[in-house]
Amino acid sequence: MKKGRQKEEVEELKVRKSENFSEWYNQVVQKADLADYAPISGCMIIRPYGYGVWEKIREWFDRELKKTGVENAYFPLFIPESFLKKEAEHFEGFVPEVAWIEKKDENEEGYALRPTSETIINDSFSKWIRSWRDLPLRINQWCNIVRWEVKATRLFLRTREFLWQEGHTAHTTMKGAEEEARLRAEQYKKLIETQLAIPVIVGKKSKGETFPGAVYTIALEALMPDGKGLQMATSHNLGQHFAKVFDIKFRDKDGEEKHVWQTSWGLTTRTIGAVAMVHGDDKGLVLPPKVAPVQVVIIPIYDNNTKGKVLKKANMVRKKLENTFDVYLDDRDVYSPGWKFNEWELKGVPLRLEIGPRDIEKKQVIFVRRDTGEKKPVKERDVVKTAEKTLELVQENLFSRAKKFLYQSIKGVKTFKELERAIKNRKMVRAHWCGNEKCEEGVKDETGATIRCIETETAKKEGKCVVCGKRARTVVYFARAY
Amino acid sequence: MKKGRQKEEVEELKVRKSENFSEWYNQVVQKADLADYAPISGCMIIRPYGYGVWEKIREWFDRELKKTGVENAYFPLFIPESFLKKEAEHFEGFVPEVAWIEKKDENEEGYALRPTSETIINDSFSKWIRSWRDLPLRINQWCNIVRWEVKATRLFLRTREFLWQEGHTAHTTMKGAEEEARLRAEQYKKLIETQLAIPVIVGKKSKGETFPGAVYTIALEALMPDGKGLQMATSHNLGQHFAKVFDIKFRDKDGEEKHVWQTSWGLTTRTIGAVAMVHGDDKGLVLPPKVAPVQVVIIPIYDNNTKGKVLKKANMVRKKLENTFDVYLDDRDVYSPGWKFNEWELKGVPLRLEIGPRDIEKKQVIFVRRDTGEKKPVKERDVVKTAEKTLELVQENLFSRAKKFLYQSIKGVKTFKELERAIKNRKMVRAHWCGNEKCEEGVKDETGATIRCIETETAKKEGKCVVCGKRARTVVYFARAY
Repeated sequence: MKKGRQKEEVEELKVRKSENFSEWYNQVVQKADLADYAPISGCMIIRPYGYGVWEKIREWFDRELKKTGVENAYFPLFIPESFLKKEAEHFEGFVPEVAWIEKKDENEEGYALRPTSETIINDSFSKWIRSWRDLPLRINQWCNIVRWEVKATRLFLRTREFLWQEGHTAHTTMKGAEEEARLRAEQYKKLIETQLAIPVIVGKKSKGETFPGAVYTIALEALMPDGKGLQMATSHNLGQHFAKVFDIKFRDKDGEEKHVWQTSWGLTTRTIGAVAMVHGDDKGLVLPPKVAPVQVVIIPIYDNNTKGKVLKKANMVRKKLENTFDVYLDDRDVYSPGWKFNEWELKGVPLRLEIGPRDIEKKQVIFVRRDTGEKKPVKERDVVKTAEKTLELVQENLFSRAKKFLYQSIKGVKTFKELERAIKNRKMVRAHWCGNEKCEEGVKDETGATIRCIETETAKKEGKCVVCGKRARTVVYFARAY
Repeated sequence: MKKGRQKEEVEELKVRKSENFSEWYNQVVQKADLADYAPISGCMIIRPYGYGVWEKIREWFDRELKKTGVENAYFPLFIPESFLKKEAEHFEGFVPEVAWIEKKDENEEGYALRPTSETIINDSFSKWIRSWRDLPLRINQWCNIVRWEVKATRLFLRTREFLWQEGHTAHTTMKGAEEEARLRAEQYKKLIETQLAIPVIVGKKSKGETFPGAVYTIALEALMPDGKGLQMATSHNLGQHFAKVFDIKFRDKDGEEKHVWQTSWGLTTRTIGAVAMVHGDDKGLVLPPKVAPVQVVIIPIYDNNTKGKVLKKANMVRKKLENTFDVYLDDRDVYSPGWKFNEWELKGVPLRLEIGPRDIEKKQVIFVRRDTGEKKPVKERDVVKTAEKTLELVQENLFSRAKKFLYQSIKGVKTFKELERAIKNRKMVRAHWCGNEKCEEGVKDETGATIRCIETETAKKEGKCVVCGKRARTVVYFARAY
């Protein structure tokens, strides 16, 4: 592994996370080599270190999907204009940000660059599905997506091209689609909480925030340190909307032809941005061990006299670790240990090992945790076991820290005034809502906050709408959002 | 695994490979569920079964690349027009097949959809590289590529969008770039020969066939059963062409600023098409075990009385095998064993296991090889060991069969007449060439054959040019090509 080259001078963050969060994020993403702005307006370059995080996410999640009956495929980047227009709601939802390719021939149909692939995949489903035997059908693809954003670019969070996975399924019954949408939401929750160490609130979207063409959308919502909500993933129950416009029918066991019931669900590279925001600190990134491209970095400390001995030992330790972890021995001669400490702290490597001549004498290695800064000597023979344990502790600590922040940031309110104040104070607001879109819009107009999702557990618990004061049976979470 | 659903009727090839190769290929790719024509002119849909082959190729090769210092990244799909134009030769080479996106704003620059990413990646290299310490720099990306072909579409072989990996590297010396280009060509050869079981001829391209912007191109050329050459992968030594136009400089150890030396190299989804063509037969696909999404299929044979017992045993065998192989137990009740035999033969699964009541009595399983049709009983306790051995034999047999075909198809010729006849007879021609482009064009005009590559081993061995009869020091391979 050739991590951490490409730099001659030590890079440092020039701003503190608590002072100017937005600028801190911008610096940390670039200086830790996660991503760069591309020379194309609105686009990003995902650098190897950032792409390494995506590879970890992809490998883990792809395995989960395959375990649960999903197969990967690849559909064209190009979507015929007529396809996009078939489902009116879907088309209206996406058309402002669709990029089109220049026609080579005026008589040819217009082609969009996929903003999502429901239409083209469902066209294939209509050809592939004939019988109940063909169902459930579960297809996923890992690909690039184009949405020609006009708002300001934010690396990972808002770019005109990003990477994602999109799953598309078809079932014989509404219940099948419901279960599927719920299963995928659960898998996203597991991915985001156990791997990315980010706690999420899971619930349905209000109608106004539902995916264009879906019956309902289950969203996984995280809270960023600046009090803004970030949608981490969504799982849509599409009902029969697309099945009807693309005429996807199957012959059921009873001999009757019926339309299928469908879902779609996706998770994008924006989750990498969330990892940076949630866990990072004034020194840079702090990566959860499960998604860190380098989990353990070894820094040898030597002078000319001790170099041979120290490097030999460092290599021995590396070899011990590399079967279990992604480990990098930073034996670059041109940088001092102090320089390297900074560099790998900036890059958020969860565990640093230091080895110097005195440690060799004592048959020990110094362990330094990135999340707490805690430093302790570990007996050489315990290196693998202790590294395993320490990385677990880091993973757990990051998650419980983030969970504490989330729960401290949720503010239950009863009045619109409280809601306004809480949003201004960067809280996520929990409140009753009557279900009226006007009340939802009122909050947005006054505070900029939207309904992130509807609380699932409290369905039907009665209260008063935080906006109009009328009877309300729905508890929702409001926040400003990315 | 949900392989082999989506079908009610038994599919059969309606043409023999030897009768109408082109139509046979078209049928085999679609009926074996590798790929479909997309509803967009010139595009394809890679179905799960075909994508499964690509995943096997990608996993194996990605690991090889990472072992040799390559890191993955992701660059934008969009290339600014000005970038493409910077290297004139490169631009001229690609402009006819570039697709552009419609401008949203007339003042904005034109953006092409990447036909290859040298330009945009080298723009980043110019920012990332400062010192000799940053070199060598080796970046790879797995992505989609757009080339707006006007010729007739051929699934996997010629489509307007395809998937590939593209590697881009920078080095301090010409020697570094030369070694890199050679190393990648060797890795491709290993991939194609040991995994895809397709023998290749490796050599430099003639100037006329060299990648636009490269000093030289090393090509890996395979021969298809219809006598046409297929370029399986290429590795380019770019010299300093792009370094100069994108101003990629490094400060060397001697303190001087110098331009870097570069390579690029790629392999696409067309290799899947080659696998289908080379190994397939009148019954359908024959997949090399190393890239088969399903390596072993188990077909239980039972009636109502024996069903429970047979399925129990079949499941036991599946469990034994599934730690080592990709195995699928086809326990679908609605199809007969005979239907299933056809289905999995069509899909080219290298090894079929049959289990019936009599086999259970005899504590045996029937093994059937897809490549030879050979059928033999195997003791239950030897199932894993014998499966391993058998798959190795299949892999070896496919390769040696293909190698035999290749060597039998190479025809050494001395005269233009012999060359013409050999090309007409679907041979690959080996002949001396004087190096003159006119002679190269003469062959193309008269026979449709191009120089696939220059033989490496015989460099400097003198003879007479097969076209003009003048002294020639180069031995080349001519063939018509895909």
